[in-house]
Amino acid sequence: MNVTLRGHTRHYRTVAFDRTRNSVLLVEQRLLPHEFQVVAMRDFRETARAIKDMIVRGAGAIGAAAAYGLAQGVQVFRGRDLKKFSRLVEIVFQTLKAARPTAVDPVNAMNDVRAAMRAGKTAQEKQALALAAAEQFATDDVRHCEAIGRHGAKLIRNGMKVLTHCNAGWLAFVDVGSATAPLYAAQAQDKKFHVFCDETRPRCQGATLTAWELAQQGISHQVITDNAAGHLMQRGEIDLVIVGSDRTLGRTGEVANKIGTYTKAVLAKRHGIPFYVAIPLSTIDWNLKSGFMIPIEERHEEEALGAWGVMTNRKSQIANPKSHYVRIANPTSGARNPGFDVTPPDLITGIITPAGIFKPRELRRRRRELGFAG
Amino acid sequence: MNVTLRGHTRHYRTVAFDRTRNSVLLVEQRLLPHEFQVVAMRDFRETARAIKDMIVRGAGAIGAAAAYGLAQGVQVFRGRDLKKFSRLVEIVFQTLKAARPTAVDPVNAMNDVRAAMRAGKTAQEKQALALAAAEQFATDDVRHCEAIGRHGAKLIRNGMKVLTHCNAGWLAFVDVGSATAPLYAAQAQDKKFHVFCDETRPRCQGATLTAWELAQQGISHQVITDNAAGHLMQRGEIDLVIVGSDRTLGRTGEVANKIGTYTKAVLAKRHGIPFYVAIPLSTIDWNLKSGFMIPIEERHEEEALGAWGVMTNRKSQIANPKSHYVRIANPTSGARNPGFDVTPPDLITGIITPAGIFKPRELRRRRRELGFAG
Repeated sequence: MNVTLRGHTRHYRTVAFDRTRNSVLLVEQRLLPHEFQVVAMRDFRETARAIKDMIVRGAGAIGAAAAYGLAQGVQVFRGRDLKKFSRLVEIVFQTLKAARPTAVDPVNAMNDVRAAMRAGKTAQEKQALALAAAEQFATDDVRHCEAIGRHGAKLIRNGMKVLTHCNAGWLAFVDVGSATAPLYAAQAQDKKFHVFCDETRPRCQGATLTAWELAQQGISHQVITDNAAGHLMQRGEIDLVIVGSDRTLGRTGEVANKIGTYTKAVLAKRHGIPFYVAIPLSTIDWNLKSGFMIPIEERHEEEALGAWGVMTNRKSQIANPKSHYVRIANPTSGARNPGFDVTPPDLITGIITPAGIFKPRELRRRRRELGFAG
Repeated sequence: MNVTLRGHTRHYRTVAFDRTRNSVLLVEQRLLPHEFQVVAMRDFRETARAIKDMIVRGAGAIGAAAAYGLAQGVQVFRGRDLKKFSRLVEIVFQTLKAARPTAVDPVNAMNDVRAAMRAGKTAQEKQALALAAAEQFATDDVRHCEAIGRHGAKLIRNGMKVLTHCNAGWLAFVDVGSATAPLYAAQAQDKKFHVFCDETRPRCQGATLTAWELAQQGISHQVITDNAAGHLMQRGEIDLVIVGSDRTLGRTGEVANKIGTYTKAVLAKRHGIPFYVAIPLSTIDWNLKSGFMIPIEERHEEEALGAWGVMTNRKSQIANPKSHYVRIANPTSGARNPGFDVTPPDLITGIITPAGIFKPRELRRRRRELGFAG
């Protein structure tokens, strides 16, 4: 998407590759929203560290980073010994996989790259195929998000007020995003609408990343606390909810997403407000038979007991873009901090996929249509 | 309630009066939860400033502070001229009223004190009657909260997990609190239970004040983000919700309370979890005919765009108890920040009053029982 820095607007991808320097280029997400920087990872170990240290986060983005990282790692090979080449592939693969052991996207992405290399007869051919496959993965990610945008934009009418939760934006993908894709597509169609960004405690990705994205794209928006949406719905100020998904159960239509998503779905149901989930296909899990089987990560209590932000001066201006952690809660109290929750299909109006919008319980029947083997 | 400082436990009221120094004693709430301090307001102008500057906040507490402030203000009168005395009463009354112009409790409390003074024939008698009336107001506030505790404690069974929102604790009253009263009463009955404190963005009174109170009383508790309760309810980890109220409509049973209360009520309903509101009688409004007529204060957007907390060192220890504001949200984004919301009676299991627990729609019929003129 476009980013404006000191008056100049340029298009950036969250993850890109610089062939001349064999470097993975990443938007440094830990500095956002207070500073925008693209950093170059010069070898696969740096790329792995960037995934581990959350310079890059989000399903599509870490998938692409791992795909590029694998291609990057094998480029440095010199010689003809294919056994040695295979050993290198394995080392790079395992290093990148270990950077985020619970995520499925990096592994899927790297499997694509590894499979593509098989067609090469020499190390050199394999190197070229790896790069091409990584580029293909990134391009597909963008195309899928654009397709989500095309389908989802139909839901947005002029004058609407749309609620989002967390960040399933372009920063979580290579570009465009999932939950944000319909917004960007509707904007391109010159529709006028307003977005409320749930701040999304404890990590506040809505207040930081989504609000920053929408500001960059010039979309009318306001941050609200997670407490406020219920009141706004009651007063008729929200017309549509669109969220992303970390894992969607293909068998049941249940959606795991950032903590607080379920609450918004319950509120939307009470008020008869359409609640949509935008998902890239990679998040569909065809195995699990119940949402209660999805392990819910209990994250560090420090997150729920404080927040990260920047100091301001008396005129409310940012004094220094460096983020600090402040402890908000009583210092002798602890916290529970579940990171995700599960929304059942009866609360979901539709699931926006690259292949169209489906009822959550319909996914199972649409498996082939969605591009999965029967 | 009891507060333990450097190993010594002592009983404190949020608001008290020191006759020998003619001073109103207040718990300095802006320093909590990081520092506990009782400050003395040496004349009525200091007391008014303390109300204005939020050293003291909460319906019962500011009522008592104003009652004591009026008594304090008239103590300094010397002489016999009752006209001059009346003029002083008026100045003190208006000064204290202007400290929090939208609040109804200070005015009601001061009306009590002013009415009591009428029985005095001399300025001296009026001075003594004013002090006695202020003491009576404070004592009644405590008795009402204790009565709420007696009724509400019956709802709490051993092993229960109770959710609270915001702070309707002893810090908001002279002592005991409203929503916390059943917890303290149940603890006194040796019941074992666990409390989840919603952090209550944007001001985080749950994470700061309620968590601090519960820690002081030794009640098992954890802070959760406002996003987490839905998930915990879904997984069967919440058995009961008790919240306070800023204004309860006697005619309809609608309850205005801190933003986010309505959301918790909607979630509780979906899960069949009892949702109770504890109210002091002073918050009942017998005039308004609909919750939609309650003006919802739109507060400064800075609250929703950042947070107040203290810096910690590498070992997560508080480095300095002084609170700082940090900006969390994207610096070029704005916010909507409604301060309160309205919960309809169909979501409320019962209203815990000093006179017993009633269905919200029952309040109207119980008007006399609740101590109001028919």
